[in-house]
Amino acid sequence: MIRLRSTFLGFALLLALAVSASADEGMWLYTAPPRAQIKAKYGFDLTDAWLDNLMKSSVRFISGGSGSFVSGDGLVITNFHIGRGDLLKMSNAEHNYVRDGFYAKTPAEEMKCLDLELNVLQSIEDVTARVNAAVPADATGTDAALARRKIFADIEKESLDQTGLRSDVVTLYQGGVYHLYRYKRYTDIRIVFAPEEQAADFGGDPDNFEFPRFDLDICIFRVYENGQPVHPAHFLKWSATGAQDGELTFVSGHPGTTRRLLTIPEIEYMRDSQLPYYLQVIKRREVLYSVWSGRADENARRADSDLLNVQNNRKRSDGQLAALQDPVFFGAKVAAEQAFKQQLAATPNGKDALAAFDRIVAAQKIITGLEPRFRLLEDGAGFNSASFSLARRLLRAGAERPKPNGERLPEFSDAKRESFEQLLFSNAPIYSDFEILKLADSLGYLVEQFGADDPLVQSVLAGKSPRDRAAELINTTQVRDLAFRKKLYEGGADAVAAAHDPMIELARVIDPESRALRKTVEAQQEIIQEAHAVIEKARFALEGTNNYPDATFTLRLAYGPVKSYEENGQTIPALTTFAGLFARDDAHHNREPFGLPARWLAKKSAVDLTTPLNFVNTADIIGGNSGSPVVNEAGEFVGIIFDGNIQSLSGDYGYSDVQTRSVSVHSAGILEALRKIYDAPALAAELFNGHR
Amino acid sequence: MIRLRSTFLGFALLLALAVSASADEGMWLYTAPPRAQIKAKYGFDLTDAWLDNLMKSSVRFISGGSGSFVSGDGLVITNFHIGRGDLLKMSNAEHNYVRDGFYAKTPAEEMKCLDLELNVLQSIEDVTARVNAAVPADATGTDAALARRKIFADIEKESLDQTGLRSDVVTLYQGGVYHLYRYKRYTDIRIVFAPEEQAADFGGDPDNFEFPRFDLDICIFRVYENGQPVHPAHFLKWSATGAQDGELTFVSGHPGTTRRLLTIPEIEYMRDSQLPYYLQVIKRREVLYSVWSGRADENARRADSDLLNVQNNRKRSDGQLAALQDPVFFGAKVAAEQAFKQQLAATPNGKDALAAFDRIVAAQKIITGLEPRFRLLEDGAGFNSASFSLARRLLRAGAERPKPNGERLPEFSDAKRESFEQLLFSNAPIYSDFEILKLADSLGYLVEQFGADDPLVQSVLAGKSPRDRAAELINTTQVRDLAFRKKLYEGGADAVAAAHDPMIELARVIDPESRALRKTVEAQQEIIQEAHAVIEKARFALEGTNNYPDATFTLRLAYGPVKSYEENGQTIPALTTFAGLFARDDAHHNREPFGLPARWLAKKSAVDLTTPLNFVNTADIIGGNSGSPVVNEAGEFVGIIFDGNIQSLSGDYGYSDVQTRSVSVHSAGILEALRKIYDAPALAAELFNGHR
Repeated sequence: MIRLRSTFLGFALLLALAVSASADEGMWLYTAPPRAQIKAKYGFDLTDAWLDNLMKSSVRFISGGSGSFVSGDGLVITNFHIGRGDLLKMSNAEHNYVRDGFYAKTPAEEMKCLDLELNVLQSIEDVTARVNAAVPADATGTDAALARRKIFADIEKESLDQTGLRSDVVTLYQGGVYHLYRYKRYTDIRIVFAPEEQAADFGGDPDNFEFPRFDLDICIFRVYENGQPVHPAHFLKWSATGAQDGELTFVSGHPGTTRRLLTIPEIEYMRDSQLPYYLQVIKRREVLYSVWSGRADENARRADSDLLNVQNNRKRSDGQLAALQDPVFFGAKVAAEQAFKQQLAATPNGKDALAAFDRIVAAQKIITGLEPRFRLLEDGAGFNSASFSLARRLLRAGAERPKPNGERLPEFSDAKRESFEQLLFSNAPIYSDFEILKLADSLGYLVEQFGADDPLVQSVLAGKSPRDRAAELINTTQVRDLAFRKKLYEGGADAVAAAHDPMIELARVIDPESRALRKTVEAQQEIIQEAHAVIEKARFALEGTNNYPDATFTLRLAYGPVKSYEENGQTIPALTTFAGLFARDDAHHNREPFGLPARWLAKKSAVDLTTPLNFVNTADIIGGNSGSPVVNEAGEFVGIIFDGNIQSLSGDYGYSDVQTRSVSVHSAGILEALRKIYDAPALAAELFNGHR
Repeated sequence: MIRLRSTFLGFALLLALAVSASADEGMWLYTAPPRAQIKAKYGFDLTDAWLDNLMKSSVRFISGGSGSFVSGDGLVITNFHIGRGDLLKMSNAEHNYVRDGFYAKTPAEEMKCLDLELNVLQSIEDVTARVNAAVPADATGTDAALARRKIFADIEKESLDQTGLRSDVVTLYQGGVYHLYRYKRYTDIRIVFAPEEQAADFGGDPDNFEFPRFDLDICIFRVYENGQPVHPAHFLKWSATGAQDGELTFVSGHPGTTRRLLTIPEIEYMRDSQLPYYLQVIKRREVLYSVWSGRADENARRADSDLLNVQNNRKRSDGQLAALQDPVFFGAKVAAEQAFKQQLAATPNGKDALAAFDRIVAAQKIITGLEPRFRLLEDGAGFNSASFSLARRLLRAGAERPKPNGERLPEFSDAKRESFEQLLFSNAPIYSDFEILKLADSLGYLVEQFGADDPLVQSVLAGKSPRDRAAELINTTQVRDLAFRKKLYEGGADAVAAAHDPMIELARVIDPESRALRKTVEAQQEIIQEAHAVIEKARFALEGTNNYPDATFTLRLAYGPVKSYEENGQTIPALTTFAGLFARDDAHHNREPFGLPARWLAKKSAVDLTTPLNFVNTADIIGGNSGSPVVNEAGEFVGIIFDGNIQSLSGDYGYSDVQTRSVSVHSAGILEALRKIYDAPALAAELFNGHR
């Protein structure tokens, strides 16, 4: 599965840069779609009406994925692996909706999610001139950053006040362009249908990022407002025949992060520092969660989401690191940068851009030096637990809220307030045994990394072992009590201090150093960002503007045909069928993670086994695109993205359409499963007809 | 399970020091058994005849475990987890003896192991004076080490020539004492019985190092010579009633390594460097092997031993690190050393010992500085594959064999020649796909650790990615061909060079730096060793000689009663039963790793469910004791060690009998299983009667 959840890699710079596109490459802005390329290569015209309908049918899951409206009565479809966190939050020891799936036969049975937020993009406005005007020309890194943060907050608040829409200023082309994205927010989201995990994630971690593939990775919600289903003006018409081999398709979704135009020192940093560090942490966690899950079924249920998350990130990061450790792949990046620098050297104004490269080297070096402590403190790797996250949010809210909007840490700005509170006041279950396990292990990691004699470590442990200290903190903190959180959030810094909550006091102990690290790191990131802006302007001057920016978890359009590919001398067909699913299940003796649910085995004879189940196309996607609708030239829903193949894992750093493929569930396969396996004719009919 | 297999931690100093014993503490030398303590506490006399019979019935598995003769017709019993490597080597895609178990109903069906070596201790001789005489008093670290290595080799060769027995000089009390251990070697070992892994390792990794426990962790071999079963003069009489709650018991086995008298800087090094590093490497491997195993059943079979090994080591090392990260446990070690140093300061000759502490600090610092490269090169963490190990053995054999015996690296000495060749010429299967997986991952680790621009890394990769280079090396080397290895080993350095084998040439590329690192590290270890000798002599002077040395994978005697313990306010009874086993299986819905084999479920009604299955006693054991016989005062076999509880994991650094327990299979439970579940009355009768 492809998933953008963790902000762990957020510390790596989220750069938004322009690239030159070739083949079916590109995650294109809706304001600058690749009309010419598509017309030239496929003879198809992207019309404004076609684009507008697709844009307003596309949905962003703020938890880290994509989706789309597929009925006039408010149905939204996304992946099971995007909805599974919500299913889990509604599960308990009696009801396990992840394992068993869920189907609301009547509207009354539709279950309201605890803290899910959906966004639907309504408009895009260019605010570049206003942002640039607010930043003094002679401002240095930190001052420029503060000025920019302030104008972002002002623009966002003004827009929110005027329109009532969630308003985010997005940095594109590394500060070449600033756009204001306005979203309609939905927070009453109810679950309508999910298959069993064994059907949605058939093949589990072994088949993750592999193809051929056989997953019914879907989850269907209905969006409500004022207690009633919404009737969106735009939704996608369902194609019962679905994606055809060879036909041109489009993907509309929210790719999270790409790093295609990093400079070599930054890529080296990813290869030599960030990815190895990150993999070390998540492999440690993977072992921790796996072992604990093995002790009891209930443990497995409680650790389930965290475990899947680390497995998914581990497989993706392993693939990324392998790409960067390949001298051929990496050598091509080096050669491209060298050629570009030679061009710059031969250009009258190239000197500025070359100097900008040097500034990146210097800033990167400072960041790298601070990281060992930054990662454990500000990034939280030393305090892995929901309780600590809540405690720090409460502590910082008390300190940040009284400040002027533009001077707060960005996550406390007025424009992000509703989303922040949605998270802070979530009633999703937090299990103290699992919390102790995670916190104890990460405190142990803190001791390893800083050393047992480090004064901060000694303050954190307070004379106890990591295990005993974690148990004490988790067992005595009140932050898992919603009423307590509300009281402290409303009471502000004084109430927070008066509570003497041990976990909040722990967050207070590390806060001075943690904030100081963040401040320095962000200042250096600003320097890097501005250096990139200089470099990219020089690149525009040399290479023109036929480009798309790096991904920013904002809506993009990708395209490409449904297409087979060659691997180890064999042709991998573009589509798989239900017959292939049952065959693979047989080959693994119906054993986990390959075992099909009993319902599937019982209904096998009812199914048309030639029905397509999954397929691949060449569209350029990345984590965050999970759940993106795939549409045909008629704009109809023909499938839903849920993964990329193993060759796609280099996609953070580059694109090729030779073997790289996106993997989708087929729209005909979805109808077949709903009708023949899940006895859900009403839901199938609503999808087929576009209304109830 | 407790297992001493990996030499990975071998780099951590294997110190043999004296300690003051309390409670039922101690892994005692057969030359200095704790007669007085046992007499005083339990009123029992250890007689020479009793000790001689137990010593000569005890068996060492050179692959890393213990066992004992239990019939006059050559039966040896050990743990399943000690025999499983041999079972695996005899398995293939058709026969899976690890999964399905094995039983030879007739002598003709007994299967010969591929490369198993057993040792039975025959005599112990004190050679301290001769060793000390051969080392000039003014020799410095390296010179002293060379002189010692030479006299070791001389003594061992002389003894081998005279007696035909395997002869090992063992360093005890950190050079206070040197003993010559003479063993009868057996190499024709045939497998008679093993249960299914699901019965032997019921509960798998989740229940590993836990109690209550329900494992039939046994494996029975028969020892042959000249094509006939041996008739050992000494073997243990089987007790059909087995261990009784509260009775005094003894454990005779081969504990591998303890570190109870390390100085604080050395323990800090374990806590801050060695254990975190080691855990990082094995958690990385655990994830690698688990994921690959999940893709196909055959993968799982091929990776099985390696995966179990890293899981076992991970759980043990996690427990050790947790003990060292506990300020109470660690603080007690610090306080003890400080008190000792104060005593030294008040002693006329204490100055020398205090200076020795400083020498340890200095030497440890040098070792710590060299380790990042030592671990990957000489310790092999950058080249994890059987093929590389074979290639390096061939390369070094060519260089070392022509040298005088005493100047060779120790593993090439004449005395170790037979064991070395047994390993080098093993015909155990090596799977190229699994080899590529392991080598690719460890080459990637090498790139991470040294950096992609490191000249040695570039030589190793030869312009390819870790994955491609690993595939090339594994697919083109001939070292997995036994005839090729024989030819090169006999042909010596010239033949090795002429072969131009790519893996051997890779080993040659890293050999200069790898050998240089080893030389420096070993010289510092010598300095540390000699400093410890000074310190321990001073300790003797202050504290007397009522001590046992740290473990050295040589035969030791431990003792203590069968005894319950308290945990989280509950009493954990000392014995478990077959009834408890079936109950735990039910609680986990007969699902792996808790699923009992079908045979067990079918035979349940035939079994006396009150029969004891596992039990605990307070005997002081450590990894390497796996398979050790537990005997009663009559010297009868009442059980077999296979694990310690989770509280025992601090045992590397200290002992307490409050909660620390050793876990055994009960002798009555073994008979019950053989008779009622495995339809093996002949084997049960041979154990019961002591002969066929």
